[in-house]
Amino acid sequence: MLVLSSPSGAGKTTISRAMLERDSNLTMSVSATTRPKRSSEVDGKDYIFVDEEKFKSMIDGGELLEHANVFGNFYGTPKKPVEEALMAGRDILFDIDWQGTQIIAGDEIAGKNLVSIFILPPNTAELENRLRTRAQDTEEVVQQRMSKAADEMSRYDGYDYVIINDKIELSVEQVQTILAAERLRIGRQIGLHDFVQELMGRE
Amino acid sequence: MLVLSSPSGAGKTTISRAMLERDSNLTMSVSATTRPKRSSEVDGKDYIFVDEEKFKSMIDGGELLEHANVFGNFYGTPKKPVEEALMAGRDILFDIDWQGTQIIAGDEIAGKNLVSIFILPPNTAELENRLRTRAQDTEEVVQQRMSKAADEMSRYDGYDYVIINDKIELSVEQVQTILAAERLRIGRQIGLHDFVQELMGRE
Repeated sequence: MLVLSSPSGAGKTTISRAMLERDSNLTMSVSATTRPKRSSEVDGKDYIFVDEEKFKSMIDGGELLEHANVFGNFYGTPKKPVEEALMAGRDILFDIDWQGTQIIAGDEIAGKNLVSIFILPPNTAELENRLRTRAQDTEEVVQQRMSKAADEMSRYDGYDYVIINDKIELSVEQVQTILAAERLRIGRQIGLHDFVQELMGRE
Repeated sequence: MLVLSSPSGAGKTTISRAMLERDSNLTMSVSATTRPKRSSEVDGKDYIFVDEEKFKSMIDGGELLEHANVFGNFYGTPKKPVEEALMAGRDILFDIDWQGTQIIAGDEIAGKNLVSIFILPPNTAELENRLRTRAQDTEEVVQQRMSKAADEMSRYDGYDYVIINDKIELSVEQVQTILAAERLRIGRQIGLHDFVQELMGRE
């Protein structure tokens, strides 16, 4: 389970898309949300768009791994696709904020399988520039996002890794490097115990 | 600080040499030992060869980070070169066994900076084959080494990562991948805190 978090505008979405294209063992976790769909978004692909009543029934039914309220809208991670991916030995990519990351990290099973990466913009000007070029956002939303970005950035030290996203290509390679290294961790190599027993002549 | 451990014959020395050639930021930690020098070995490069009296004075003087007795010979890691490398921001490579790794991992300062990798042979036949082709060893030493190898392998789960050394080239790449990923860890990026403060506009 790979978590990518960042203040909006740091390039996380672009990096996520590139990772999904390059790594066939990686599936994206699609969040559920009550916020209105943007014209460019596809229901079930970018988000699962639901109304507040449905969202609350998902919370009550224990169907969400984590959920949070951001600017009055609910966001949450459906539990079932995550469990299915882990059972199938597939890695799953989460595009969630620091609150969601903390909740998943605290989960007994999910926490052990979690690798978290925080993406930072190379500088403040670049961050503001990226936030302003989202044509659909009003000035008020841009200012809200800048303020939220500062808050979000202050949480970087709860993550395992940090990547400063100056060149997208390099950042994608760094995420791939982290994922490749994490797959070599003792606890992540399936069948390792049996393999060592066999090496020791204790088949 | 990067530790490579393995049962002898798993290819650790070959991997270490390749890493040193490719990564100019990496220095090898040269162990001190009381065992006799082999004809192919260079004093100060392969080991620092000392007599037992000198070794004991190094222990008493607190000059060793860790030391152990293997088959009646002493082996130890001099502390000073490690401290110098860390101060200079250089990475240091250790070719030590599980006991040495445990001792360093338990050290307050060294432990936090440690990344440990365990190298396994691809199968038992290959391990025995590699141990037998060391021309200078007697049959008794080969058997001792096989038995020590089994004991050493049973300690794999105290390490951070494991690499099954089937193709040397791939194994070297995997060590490089681990090192590159570990350099992206939050705690290892020097100046990160100041960088984030600046991003947040709190210069």
